[in-house]
Amino acid sequence: MNNLPFKRKFINDPVYGLITIPNTLVFDLIEHPWFQRLRRILQLGLTHYVYPSAVHTRYQHALGAMHLMTQAIEVLRSKGILITAEEEEGALCAILLHDIGHGPYSHALEQTMVRELSHEDISLLMMDSLNEQMNNRLETANRIFRNDHPKKFLHQLVSSQLDMDRLDYLSRDSFFTGVAEGVINTDRIIKMLTVVDDQLVVEGKGIYSIEKFIISRRLMYWQVYLHKTVIAAEYMLVNILKRAKELASQGVSLFGSPVLHLFLYSDITITHFLEDREWIGEFAKLDDYDILSAIKVWTTNPDPILSFLCKSMIDRHLYKVEIQNEPFDRKYIADLKEKTVTLFGLEDEKDTGYFVVEGTVTNNAYNPEHDRIRIWFRNNELVDVSEASDQLNISVLSTPVNKHLLCYSKNIVV
Amino acid sequence: MNNLPFKRKFINDPVYGLITIPNTLVFDLIEHPWFQRLRRILQLGLTHYVYPSAVHTRYQHALGAMHLMTQAIEVLRSKGILITAEEEEGALCAILLHDIGHGPYSHALEQTMVRELSHEDISLLMMDSLNEQMNNRLETANRIFRNDHPKKFLHQLVSSQLDMDRLDYLSRDSFFTGVAEGVINTDRIIKMLTVVDDQLVVEGKGIYSIEKFIISRRLMYWQVYLHKTVIAAEYMLVNILKRAKELASQGVSLFGSPVLHLFLYSDITITHFLEDREWIGEFAKLDDYDILSAIKVWTTNPDPILSFLCKSMIDRHLYKVEIQNEPFDRKYIADLKEKTVTLFGLEDEKDTGYFVVEGTVTNNAYNPEHDRIRIWFRNNELVDVSEASDQLNISVLSTPVNKHLLCYSKNIVV
Amino acid sequence: MNNLPFKRKFINDPVYGLITIPNTLVFDLIEHPWFQRLRRILQLGLTHYVYPSAVHTRYQHALGAMHLMTQAIEVLRSKGILITAEEEEGALCAILLHDIGHGPYSHALEQTMVRELSHEDISLLMMDSLNEQMNNRLETANRIFRNDHPKKFLHQLVSSQLDMDRLDYLSRDSFFTGVAEGVINTDRIIKMLTVVDDQLVVEGKGIYSIEKFIISRRLMYWQVYLHKTVIAAEYMLVNILKRAKELASQGVSLFGSPVLHLFLYSDITITHFLEDREWIGEFAKLDDYDILSAIKVWTTNPDPILSFLCKSMIDRHLYKVEIQNEPFDRKYIADLKEKTVTLFGLEDEKDTGYFVVEGTVTNNAYNPEHDRIRIWFRNNELVDVSEASDQLNISVLSTPVNKHLLCYSKNIVV
Amino acid sequence: MNNLPFKRKFINDPVYGLITIPNTLVFDLIEHPWFQRLRRILQLGLTHYVYPSAVHTRYQHALGAMHLMTQAIEVLRSKGILITAEEEEGALCAILLHDIGHGPYSHALEQTMVRELSHEDISLLMMDSLNEQMNNRLETANRIFRNDHPKKFLHQLVSSQLDMDRLDYLSRDSFFTGVAEGVINTDRIIKMLTVVDDQLVVEGKGIYSIEKFIISRRLMYWQVYLHKTVIAAEYMLVNILKRAKELASQGVSLFGSPVLHLFLYSDITITHFLEDREWIGEFAKLDDYDILSAIKVWTTNPDPILSFLCKSMIDRHLYKVEIQNEPFDRKYIADLKEKTVTLFGLEDEKDTGYFVVEGTVTNNAYNPEHDRIRIWFRNNELVDVSEASDQLNISVLSTPVNKHLLCYSKNIVV
Repeated sequence: MNNLPFKRKFINDPVYGLITIPNTLVFDLIEHPWFQRLRRILQLGLTHYVYPSAVHTRYQHALGAMHLMTQAIEVLRSKGILITAEEEEGALCAILLHDIGHGPYSHALEQTMVRELSHEDISLLMMDSLNEQMNNRLETANRIFRNDHPKKFLHQLVSSQLDMDRLDYLSRDSFFTGVAEGVINTDRIIKMLTVVDDQLVVEGKGIYSIEKFIISRRLMYWQVYLHKTVIAAEYMLVNILKRAKELASQGVSLFGSPVLHLFLYSDITITHFLEDREWIGEFAKLDDYDILSAIKVWTTNPDPILSFLCKSMIDRHLYKVEIQNEPFDRKYIADLKEKTVTLFGLEDEKDTGYFVVEGTVTNNAYNPEHDRIRIWFRNNELVDVSEASDQLNISVLSTPVNKHLLCYSKNIVV
Repeated sequence: MNNLPFKRKFINDPVYGLITIPNTLVFDLIEHPWFQRLRRILQLGLTHYVYPSAVHTRYQHALGAMHLMTQAIEVLRSKGILITAEEEEGALCAILLHDIGHGPYSHALEQTMVRELSHEDISLLMMDSLNEQMNNRLETANRIFRNDHPKKFLHQLVSSQLDMDRLDYLSRDSFFTGVAEGVINTDRIIKMLTVVDDQLVVEGKGIYSIEKFIISRRLMYWQVYLHKTVIAAEYMLVNILKRAKELASQGVSLFGSPVLHLFLYSDITITHFLEDREWIGEFAKLDDYDILSAIKVWTTNPDPILSFLCKSMIDRHLYKVEIQNEPFDRKYIADLKEKTVTLFGLEDEKDTGYFVVEGTVTNNAYNPEHDRIRIWFRNNELVDVSEASDQLNISVLSTPVNKHLLCYSKNIVV
Repeated sequence: MNNLPFKRKFINDPVYGLITIPNTLVFDLIEHPWFQRLRRILQLGLTHYVYPSAVHTRYQHALGAMHLMTQAIEVLRSKGILITAEEEEGALCAILLHDIGHGPYSHALEQTMVRELSHEDISLLMMDSLNEQMNNRLETANRIFRNDHPKKFLHQLVSSQLDMDRLDYLSRDSFFTGVAEGVINTDRIIKMLTVVDDQLVVEGKGIYSIEKFIISRRLMYWQVYLHKTVIAAEYMLVNILKRAKELASQGVSLFGSPVLHLFLYSDITITHFLEDREWIGEFAKLDDYDILSAIKVWTTNPDPILSFLCKSMIDRHLYKVEIQNEPFDRKYIADLKEKTVTLFGLEDEKDTGYFVVEGTVTNNAYNPEHDRIRIWFRNNELVDVSEASDQLNISVLSTPVNKHLLCYSKNIVV
Repeated sequence: MNNLPFKRKFINDPVYGLITIPNTLVFDLIEHPWFQRLRRILQLGLTHYVYPSAVHTRYQHALGAMHLMTQAIEVLRSKGILITAEEEEGALCAILLHDIGHGPYSHALEQTMVRELSHEDISLLMMDSLNEQMNNRLETANRIFRNDHPKKFLHQLVSSQLDMDRLDYLSRDSFFTGVAEGVINTDRIIKMLTVVDDQLVVEGKGIYSIEKFIISRRLMYWQVYLHKTVIAAEYMLVNILKRAKELASQGVSLFGSPVLHLFLYSDITITHFLEDREWIGEFAKLDDYDILSAIKVWTTNPDPILSFLCKSMIDRHLYKVEIQNEPFDRKYIADLKEKTVTLFGLEDEKDTGYFVVEGTVTNNAYNPEHDRIRIWFRNNELVDVSEASDQLNISVLSTPVNKHLLCYSKNIVV
């Protein structure tokens, strides 16, 4: 921007104290409207219905992950790993932008309004566009992000089982939900990182911290990410957006901001985005405020299904949820649906799906085929954590746990 | 609701660990849509532009204050102060509802859209209405809130220099902003409370905690509540709402939710609320999402002033701010305004007020006339903290500190 | 003491904030010299050689466990479990005194100087004596401690898998060592306790906290309690005391306080204690200061073995430690011992045991036969946590992990 | 030691997480017996009688201060301040050793047994000796410590109003006492440090943290360092050592370790230390264990004064303390002393001083003449914090607060 030396800026962060903005490029990225928009997207969507303080945003998370990256780079350099200034800048920008393509309530959105568009795809498109806008200053960042950089460990810092994304979100989500069980020792884990054969690995004496990390992650899944009430709230949101989309496709006029209208009344696929880059700009206008402000207005929509669901959501009258290890009895579900037909005076039986939802959730803590965390011992041996650990039972950890969920409107008397 | 014994519920809270919902009445209040709405109102408005994690809501604060009230009541009872079960319930509900009348971005709103309506007035109206809705179960709460209850100390727990509101918000705001300087020891302060002659007072050995509390509050004012950038953001919001209101009064059509429209296109005074209780219900629909989603749309409004301000707000291009102890030079301000006229092609000179804003902020830490915190010594003497303390200099603390602010659009080259 | 109402006292505690001394009896016990002596006994013995901040004392732990007991009692009462004032006082005193019989560096001491005296035996004797000294005010406490009280759950609060002892020491040791992996959520675990059929059990929704508790405990074992360097330091202390005892039995005169002399130059068994209660009073004089001040003086003792070991201990030249899953090679050990004979000019081959020590450590995280933690589900079912949990693999947890240790003086060149 | 690259070691610290040992020289110093001895000297002497967890040692503090120095150096370098590798090593060693000359219970010791020897003098002598022992590797450290280094700001990092010593001990003492009011934001203060004209100064926007730092320090003084009960305990210890010394000078035989005997039965002055360097080695053997183990034995000494005081100390029957702003009434003191003569059957009236002690404590928070903390504003102005701050009233802060203490044995019925 100018020729003055960059004056470091600090951002207060309750998780780490102070976060330093290390250079001008990072600063310029943070200032970009697309990044500023992450201020308006909650990191954990509807989780605050269960954990009221979990209203932290993707903005905070992106800054936090960038902060951990500065620490990781310092640690690796102190161990003699060569990381050039350009690579450092690249890694910092790559982690800063790793979630840039997230829309509001991504999971729900991707099932309804932008069906063929994963946030990963959009992230890539946005990074390309940002690179253009910034005169190719993001080349290295892009290469690292796409794993096209010759130093593979840089990509692993951005995206792997031990990446800075994960370390930050586990800490941060644990901090803001108040779920003390999820606390991990990022400081110690990062201090134990090193690079062997261009692979990011953990020094032997860091093994206990890694075990704790795997277990904490697992507990966070069950206590937070897959909490049955959170899932129920998400199902409700999916149903709201589905219904709105359905009404829109029938030509019903619905309240909404222009950008919400665009996505509600069009059938958008990845092709749109690839053919016309302007779509990215439109997508980048969408945030939690478009969704939630519309839902608030829809609480009085003439469509009884839409208004019922929206009012339930806004007033936190979420679905009742049952959870069990086995699939639910078909008869039981059929009964519930039947009652729904009567109760809500449904004309179309398929509309029962708005009031009775089945689902499954799966969690496996550590899959040694995909999730490799390698421990490096002094005898120069590299061992997968699942083998190196006495505490972790690989057969347990690698068997996914499946649970079946049944959600239905509380008004249905069973 | 039913005759089963109430099953205590817990809410995770990162500040205090677990918050217990102590009884059915409190539970029913929390479930009420008017209380649920506090989930959608940020406690600190636009402060997150400076402290990104300060996105906690009025909902969390109300629960936290209620939690501290349970602790205070337990402490007082352990010291032999009589508090009946009914009074306990009343105090809990009174503190839970103390902020119920807050609208979105209250300070800005009260200067523009609901000009004659303080949130305190609305809180009283809402509490009356809730009492009716709940078959008078809130009688005692109402009396305590209005200071009509014979035990005056109960009101002081809800509203005084050492009320649970203040103790919670200082802790909570400090926690979420990450401003460690503001941390207070609520646990210790509460343990030191007692009642003498129906007055809430502090035991002598709690004096250091009280000194620290007064000083922390002062630092929180300068570092957070009166942070110049936060004030600048609020001025910008006020100007946005002013401009929107101005355009609305000219009949210009603006995007907005129905409830926002109602307040934008009507001139609402306290009389409306008193004459027609339905206005309370309308007000209770308004939250941050109505305001911010409209501002987002207005970024492309044909009115250049409105769209410029909205875009600046959304992309965080806040006013540049100067702050000083003396008033700003009139000439300097006139120059700035003149440049604005040219730069933005303003037709009406009074519109310069949208781009150049003067203001003052004031803080006095402790006013012994209004803010009485009494310390109770073993010789049965009650002394004001300003006299009891060797550390606090009453002349310093009671002299208000005034600062002058000058905000102007960054585009103006000075 | 007097007839005035008891004035509650508070003690600052970094782990919990403020600890309240709830009544006169507890206060009087804390003032007793036998309890004050716990100030001079480190909770974790020599662990500070690895974790320098782990210098907290048994005094702090006893107060902390008492504090958790007040919380547990309050929670249980709020769930309708009847606990009389007398039982409350009894439970508080029982937990306060649960470790009263610990001597300095108990593990080392019990292997050398008070060979037939477990600290549990001594605790019982001391509690009897205290009860006499305090005019039988500890009757109920004694009954609870000995599990002679009709309400069995009171004993379980003092001594079981989920007792307040364990909850406090895991939290406290984790806090002072700085081993974040060991942090447990005592607040939540206690809030989830209830009593079913006179058994202390955990409510169903507390299961994740219990899983985390079991795993944290396991990690604390490996990272702290069984840390190889800590074990090595303890072996060294055992050898020092053994050598001193050996020299004493040969009539060699050694520096030491009178009470240390008493235990060094006599062969004390439980019979002494049972026959002559004065022995308890003598034992109660012994603390870390007697042991360590003698070791400091012994660093210049003419006996080369004693002085070598003492100097090593004081200057923190601990044994080198190897740890492995299999037993060590006999030949390897024989070699080491042979080198020792030469290096230290040993006359008696059995003295090599002072320089080369073999040992094993064992940890099993959860033994469902002895360690029962029962989870109580709403359908009134009581299930062992090992069955109730998807996360814990019972076969893994119940298989003890054995490790073999070999410690030898660093001076031996291998 | 060897030619392998130094392998960084980590030490767990509950205050900062992990402390890194940055190089071989620092490692070797830590291993030195003189430094290891700091493990056996409590940082806050008898303060644990009021705050039971304040049993942290000078060893932890020295490591913590060294850790903050690594952070400060990194921050300064990032701002373009040149610090060579040699200077870095020097500053790290200087801060590590800044307290090396402290004896056990320094304040008490310096008033009785080593009367003419300040711990500062001894530190200098020990650093010289260490430098010799380590082949002059501590030259730079010594120069920095003595303020003989051309870069004055390096000395200021070790010893000034904002040195790493102070930052660490305030944090650490606050942490271990559990006095939340004393918490300071070391991270932020350090990030705001810079060097202007070879002076360590604070950037303008750090002013709130500095204000908070000054106030916290002041509160720590009254709540911890000058707590009346702590002072009373120290007076008692002084009296014990005085009495022992008196008896020793009369040729009475007292229990004690050889090194304690040496200092008890000789009259040692700085001349001894200067003439014969062996005295340093002797002094370096003395620690808390020598003092306290002797006091324990002296509880049964035939001298009634010594045994009474020692028993009072060990059982925590401390003096009763009165504190007030004015001097105590002479008549009141005379009465107390008279009662003492009778009560304890004193033969010599001057012995009443063992049972009735007068004293004063003084605290002034900030003396702008000696304590200079300079704030550096962007206009390149350097302003003393007392002028830069709106919050701090210099006349209040610079007026020392004096309090008068009167301590007397609880047995005296007034």
